Amino acid sequence: MKPKSVTKTRVRYAETDKMGVVYHANYYLYMEIGRTDYLRKRGKKYSDIENMGYYMFVTETNCKHYIPAKFEDELIIETYLEEIKGASFYYHYLIKNIDGDLLAEGFTKHAFTDHDGKPVRMPKDIKELFTKNID
Amino acid sequence: MKPKSVTKTRVRYAETDKMGVVYHANYYLYMEIGRTDYLRKRGKKYSDIENMGYYMFVTETNCKHYIPAKFEDELIIETYLEEIKGASFYYHYLIKNIDGDLLAEGFTKHAFTDHDGKPVRMPKDIKELFTKNID
Amino acid sequence: MKPKSVTKTRVRYAETDKMGVVYHANYYLYMEIGRTDYLRKRGKKYSDIENMGYYMFVTETNCKHYIPAKFEDELIIETYLEEIKGASFYYHYLIKNIDGDLLAEGFTKHAFTDHDGKPVRMPKDIKELFTKNID
Amino acid sequence: MKPKSVTKTRVRYAETDKMGVVYHANYYLYMEIGRTDYLRKRGKKYSDIENMGYYMFVTETNCKHYIPAKFEDELIIETYLEEIKGASFYYHYLIKNIDGDLLAEGFTKHAFTDHDGKPVRMPKDIKELFTKNID
Repeated sequence: MKPKSVTKTRVRYAETDKMGVVYHANYYLYMEIGRTDYLRKRGKKYSDIENMGYYMFVTETNCKHYIPAKFEDELIIETYLEEIKGASFYYHYLIKNIDGDLLAEGFTKHAFTDHDGKPVRMPKDIKELFTKNID
Repeated sequence: MKPKSVTKTRVRYAETDKMGVVYHANYYLYMEIGRTDYLRKRGKKYSDIENMGYYMFVTETNCKHYIPAKFEDELIIETYLEEIKGASFYYHYLIKNIDGDLLAEGFTKHAFTDHDGKPVRMPKDIKELFTKNID
Repeated sequence: MKPKSVTKTRVRYAETDKMGVVYHANYYLYMEIGRTDYLRKRGKKYSDIENMGYYMFVTETNCKHYIPAKFEDELIIETYLEEIKGASFYYHYLIKNIDGDLLAEGFTKHAFTDHDGKPVRMPKDIKELFTKNID
Repeated sequence: MKPKSVTKTRVRYAETDKMGVVYHANYYLYMEIGRTDYLRKRGKKYSDIENMGYYMFVTETNCKHYIPAKFEDELIIETYLEEIKGASFYYHYLIKNIDGDLLAEGFTKHAFTDHDGKPVRMPKDIKELFTKNID
């Protein structure tokens, strides 16, 4: 079973557009909430890792849209660590409403780098954190 | 040759993040600028098409990041209409700096729908607009 | 004592800018979270009121910045209904960190309107909701 | 006559909200475009000043809304340097449509600081730049 986290958020007015639904690019903000929480739930803040001298550059993102989310909808973000290999890793996300309907899904690929943007191998203790299964 | 448009924009402070570069999801805003301009350059405003009773729902987006854009960088957005088939169509984008370096590329897939979100075949005159080659 | 609500949120990466702190305009998003929650805590969703045929147009906003909020900071948003008079009302907000330090404060003024943007007197039951003191 | 600049921009889809108009907080993005261009038109990039070791922290913002801007509207941003005194300065902005109607107006107050956030007196050459009248 892939390591996973489940996070809730609520759609903000600012995130809607004139179509009356969530603006498509804002689903990437939900994914960001998901992966930040993924780490925090494993005992590490994303900002702590940055303060240790690393960045987690986004190298590719993808999102498929099925059902539009609306203002004040409560969303459930499921974040799965799909792979971690050398300096790169990627997450897969499912974004659902509280009835369990799948609204959107996507992935983000990342390079683990130093603060000059140079890819570096993930330190063992951080890697363990990423791959930890917590139910 | 695929129908195309070229649009310039400049990175806003608001579009940067604490890494000192453009926040990844904001490249989708550049793509939006590109495809809106793509239509406007063919003599039609995106908002006109919406006012005619249509929406152009985003069904999938993708972006690959090569070189990070920075605050006040001038960006060149190349928008290509890749395909149009029934109620769906998609664009491919190249985002470059003024030296011609490729910073990012991506695509957006869309469904042409009525205001209830039901996919509809694109009217002939609008389809002609989309596929028009200009200079 | 003025009717009030207290709401928590956490700073997103997307909300920071190249200065390494929250981009100034994003404090208005925190205020929006505050006033949406203010109503929800009184038993009414903001979206319900919109669905009843009303809008709460923003007519003026103001924010003073004292201490910059940072990525992943937990914020406490205190929302106070300051005044309600005819078709207009306004909120005052205090944005604090979890130590109670005041990071920013501001206000938003609103016009209660129909969906054509025409100011209308607030219905009695909605007005009672706005002015209700809870806990 | 106060030193001034005039800048054009066009409303993005991403800037609208479910009311069908520009989300109120996004007017602060237009002000940012205005004051960045204000400096650039005087021969200095905002980013150059940051690279010299300074920041221009926002200490207060204010915006009054008269007529809502809509998707694809062309906006004219008039930026006026109102005052510059020691380490602080502020801009006043008028945001108009192409017919000259005033949609919104506001101000932003700033502290000129070093990169640790300590207010510093503005160097003479930068101050001259800020106060320069260009036709």
